[in-house]
Amino acid sequence: MTEIARELMIDRAAAARRRIQEQIAEQVRELGVDGTPLEQVAGLSGHEFLGRWMQPEIPPPPAIAVLFGMEWLEVSEGRVVLALDPAQWMFNPLGMIHGGVAATLLDTALGSAVHTTLPPATGYATTDLHIRYLRAMNVETGRVVATATAVHSGRRNATAEGRIEAEATGKVIATGTAGCTILRASE
Amino acid sequence: MTEIARELMIDRAAAARRRIQEQIAEQVRELGVDGTPLEQVAGLSGHEFLGRWMQPEIPPPPAIAVLFGMEWLEVSEGRVVLALDPAQWMFNPLGMIHGGVAATLLDTALGSAVHTTLPPATGYATTDLHIRYLRAMNVETGRVVATATAVHSGRRNATAEGRIEAEATGKVIATGTAGCTILRASE
Amino acid sequence: MTEIARELMIDRAAAARRRIQEQIAEQVRELGVDGTPLEQVAGLSGHEFLGRWMQPEIPPPPAIAVLFGMEWLEVSEGRVVLALDPAQWMFNPLGMIHGGVAATLLDTALGSAVHTTLPPATGYATTDLHIRYLRAMNVETGRVVATATAVHSGRRNATAEGRIEAEATGKVIATGTAGCTILRASE
Amino acid sequence: MTEIARELMIDRAAAARRRIQEQIAEQVRELGVDGTPLEQVAGLSGHEFLGRWMQPEIPPPPAIAVLFGMEWLEVSEGRVVLALDPAQWMFNPLGMIHGGVAATLLDTALGSAVHTTLPPATGYATTDLHIRYLRAMNVETGRVVATATAVHSGRRNATAEGRIEAEATGKVIATGTAGCTILRASE
Repeated sequence: MTEIARELMIDRAAAARRRIQEQIAEQVRELGVDGTPLEQVAGLSGHEFLGRWMQPEIPPPPAIAVLFGMEWLEVSEGRVVLALDPAQWMFNPLGMIHGGVAATLLDTALGSAVHTTLPPATGYATTDLHIRYLRAMNVETGRVVATATAVHSGRRNATAEGRIEAEATGKVIATGTAGCTILRASE
Repeated sequence: MTEIARELMIDRAAAARRRIQEQIAEQVRELGVDGTPLEQVAGLSGHEFLGRWMQPEIPPPPAIAVLFGMEWLEVSEGRVVLALDPAQWMFNPLGMIHGGVAATLLDTALGSAVHTTLPPATGYATTDLHIRYLRAMNVETGRVVATATAVHSGRRNATAEGRIEAEATGKVIATGTAGCTILRASE
Repeated sequence: MTEIARELMIDRAAAARRRIQEQIAEQVRELGVDGTPLEQVAGLSGHEFLGRWMQPEIPPPPAIAVLFGMEWLEVSEGRVVLALDPAQWMFNPLGMIHGGVAATLLDTALGSAVHTTLPPATGYATTDLHIRYLRAMNVETGRVVATATAVHSGRRNATAEGRIEAEATGKVIATGTAGCTILRASE
Repeated sequence: MTEIARELMIDRAAAARRRIQEQIAEQVRELGVDGTPLEQVAGLSGHEFLGRWMQPEIPPPPAIAVLFGMEWLEVSEGRVVLALDPAQWMFNPLGMIHGGVAATLLDTALGSAVHTTLPPATGYATTDLHIRYLRAMNVETGRVVATATAVHSGRRNATAEGRIEAEATGKVIATGTAGCTILRASE
C-alpha cells in the first residue's frame, strides 16, 4: 500500500507537470513563432541571427527563454547582455534560487557570445560549462544582469567568460566560463 | 516607432511569462506543500531529509523539480539517482535540449549527493559546478537518468561527481562535478 | 640603489635557474633519447606509443617527467596509472607541495588516457583541465599514484577523469577532469 | 630479463632525477633562504608577505618558483603579475611546452591574487583550479606574462581569474580561474 501511495503521488506530480507544460506550449504558440524562412537563417552570421531578438518584428527566442524570462539587452560582436527577473517557481523552500537558474542564464549568455563571432552557416556546441557561485540569489536580489564576452574564437574551438550581477547593487552573484567546439559547414 | 514595436513585443513576452508562472504556481499549490514542521526538518540528516521525497505521504520537492519533471529513484548515503523526462519547452528550434537542463539536473543531483552525507542542522552551498557535454540531448534521447556520488565530505568542504545517461541506450550525455562549502550550525 | 639591489637579486636567481636547467639538460642527455625513427612513431597508436614507456629498451619520457619523477605503472587502452615521489623542491616553506605538482601529474595522466584511445597518425590537444584539491600533499604523504580513465573518445572531442591517491593510505588527494580536441591527419 | 632491463632503466631514470634534485637543492641553498623570523611573517598581510618578493633584500620565493623561473612583476591588493621564461626541460619532443607549466604558473598567480586580499594571520587553500588552453606554448612563444585578479574575497571563500599572454605578441595562451577556502585564525 505504501508503494501504491507513492505511485499515486508520482502520478499526481506527473499530471501537474503535464498541465504546466501544456500551458507553456499554449502561451508560446500564442506569442507566435519565428517566421524567418530557414534558407534566410542559414545566410545570417551569429551576430545577425541573435541580433534579430533585439528587433520588434521577430518573435522572441525559444520557450525556455520565455519561461525563464530572459530579456536581451545587447547583442554585439563578441558580447551579449541578458537580464532575468526571478520568478516564484525558481525558489526553494528556504528562499534561495536554484543553482540551475544561474547556470541556464550563463550557458545562454556564454554560448551566444561565441555565436556572435561566427560567420553564416557555422554552428557551435558547448563542450563544457563552469560556474562559480559567489553569492546566493534570494528574494531580495531582484532582477539580475548577465554579461558574456568571447575570449577566443578560433578555427576549431572558442571560449567565453561572463558574470551575473544584481541590477540594483552591482554585486556579483556568479561567474562562468564555457568552451565550445566550432561546427563549420565545410567539414 | 521601431522602439515602440520592440517594447510591445517585450510586453507580450512578459505577459506570456507572467501567465505561465501563475499557472505553475497554481499547479504547485494544488499538489500541496511539504507539511513537515520546520523544527522536525532541522532534526533530520541530509539523508533523511531527501529520503522523504521517496516516500508517498510527503509532497514532492520544490516547484523547479516539478517543472523539470525530476523523479527521485534513489537516495542513499553519498549517492542519489534522479530521472528526467524531456519536455517540449526544453527544446530549441533545432531540436536540441538547452544545456541549462543538464546543468540544472546535475546541480540538483550533485548537491543532493553531498547533502546525504551531512548530519542534522548542517547545510551546504554549492561553490562551483562544472559540466562536460558529451552528446546532444535531442528528441530521440528520451528519458535520462542522473547518478551522483559524494567523492569527499570533509569538515569545511565537499565534492561530488556525476553523470547523465540516456535510459534507453546507456550512452553518456554529460558528466559533472561540484564543490560545496559546508555550513555547520556551530560556526 | 634599492632598484639596483633588486636587479642583483633577480640576476642571482636567474643565474641559479640557468645552472639548474643546464644540469637538468645534462642529466637528460646522459639518460639518452628515444631512438625510435619518427616514421615508426607515426605508425603507432596512442596505446603503443605510450606503452613503450613501460618497456626497458626505450628511454624514459620527456625531461619534465624525469624531473617530476613520474613512473608509468600501467598503460592500457583508455587507462593509465602513474606514480610520483615528492621531491624537496616541490615543497613551499610551510611544508605543503605546490598545487602545480598535482596539476602537472593529472594533466599528464588525463591526456595520456585519451591518447591511448587514438589510432596511429592522430594527435590531441588538451583544451581544458579542472583540478579539485581535496587534501594537502605534505611531507607525510609520501609517494602518490594517479589513475586516469578516458570517459568519452569521439571523432572531434574526448574527455578523461582521474584522481591522485596517497599510496600508503589510499586517501584521495585530488581529482581532475580534462577535455581534449582530437587532431586527425585527414583534417 | 626484459623485466630486469626495465628495472635498470627505471633505476637510471631515478638516479638522474636524484642528481637533478640534489643540484636544485644546492642552488637554492646558495641563493639563501628567507631570513624573516616567523613571528614577523605572521604579522604580515598577504599583500605585505608577497610584496617582499618585489624587494631586493629578501630572498626569492620557494624552489619551485626558482626552478620555473617565475619573476614577480607586480603585487598589489587583489592583483599580481608574474613572468616566466620557458626552459628547455619544459618542452616535449614535439616542441610544445607541457600543460603543467601553464597550470603551475596560473595556480601561483591565482592563489597569490587571493592572498593579497587577506589580513595578517589568515591563510587560504586552493580548492579547485580550472585552466583553458587557447594556444600552444612552443619555441617561438618566448617569455610569457600571467596576470591574476581576485574576483571575490569573502569570509569563507574567495575566487580569482587570470590569463597568460605571450609578452611579444600579446596573444592569450591560457586563461584560468581558482576557488579558495579562507583559513582564519579564529576558527
